[in-house]
Amino acid sequence: MRILGVDPGSRAAGWALVTFGRTPALEAAGVLRPPAGLDFAGRLRFLRDGLAAIVRERRPDAASVERVYAGINPQSLITLGEARGVLLLALAEAGVPIAEVTPAEVKRAVTGTGAAGKEQVRRMVTALLGRRLPLDASDAAAAALAHGFVEAPRSAVWRAPEGPAGAPRSWRRRPSG
Amino acid sequence: MRILGVDPGSRAAGWALVTFGRTPALEAAGVLRPPAGLDFAGRLRFLRDGLAAIVRERRPDAASVERVYAGINPQSLITLGEARGVLLLALAEAGVPIAEVTPAEVKRAVTGTGAAGKEQVRRMVTALLGRRLPLDASDAAAAALAHGFVEAPRSAVWRAPEGPAGAPRSWRRRPSG
Repeated sequence: MRILGVDPGSRAAGWALVTFGRTPALEAAGVLRPPAGLDFAGRLRFLRDGLAAIVRERRPDAASVERVYAGINPQSLITLGEARGVLLLALAEAGVPIAEVTPAEVKRAVTGTGAAGKEQVRRMVTALLGRRLPLDASDAAAAALAHGFVEAPRSAVWRAPEGPAGAPRSWRRRPSG
Repeated sequence: MRILGVDPGSRAAGWALVTFGRTPALEAAGVLRPPAGLDFAGRLRFLRDGLAAIVRERRPDAASVERVYAGINPQSLITLGEARGVLLLALAEAGVPIAEVTPAEVKRAVTGTGAAGKEQVRRMVTALLGRRLPLDASDAAAAALAHGFVEAPRSAVWRAPEGPAGAPRSWRRRPSG
């Protein structure tokens, strides 16, 4: 199972494609940065077109996007929401199933505790994927990991024959429901 | 000059197309309401496709969207931002210039005071356009009026020959800058 994590933002939107075999592996990652000269509507087009191109090329099985609740001022929330909206649209138009994960789910999945700090999450993403990514891409990878640790084992019952030969039996047998 | 006002929302997005001749006139208006069964990504597609269809059919010269700052909780701001993002994207993709107007600009343009209440704005929109619209469409019309009262006179120097015969000379002569 291959999951595309997306970290929305209007100035920088991170993405990371993680493959869930016996252990998770990074397939590709990057950050979409609208050129400085663009107005806000141009930035939205850039983000949407950029993610649409990534999805077209990479064909992920699912996408994972972190839910955002608070912590920034209202105008920033609106701007973030706008970026989020066009990124979700790009995924929906390509028929990619979208999962939303909460910040606590991301922290718990990656570090074992929902109270982890941002740098701790990044260190664990680096450790899990064997590569230190730019912050936005690292956050995207964390979202992919959070969804993949729940979903990949579930889908493994069908995937195992094509998957890594050494996948433990209990993992292959996990029921799909 | 024909201006499309848009009032973003994820459950209901109002729109109103206002023509600025000697006096503003309502050409068409409506409310986009995603069907209840859709998930959030489906709602975003519905809104974007709906507004894209309206723009394709009606070909407005410009669009006006009210800026939102505050007054609702963070999660609602994100959701509103998402709807706003895909609606702005639909306008940008169709090449429609987008103006953002502040709530105070809308109130002042329509009622003469930036401190007007919501119902006062709606009453004035009804009076100006000669028709009481559903609330979301009325808010969209108010945004169109706020932008049109500033922009239409400026563009009138070119528009007057095709415009209403009785347009006052001083109005036609206003410099374009």
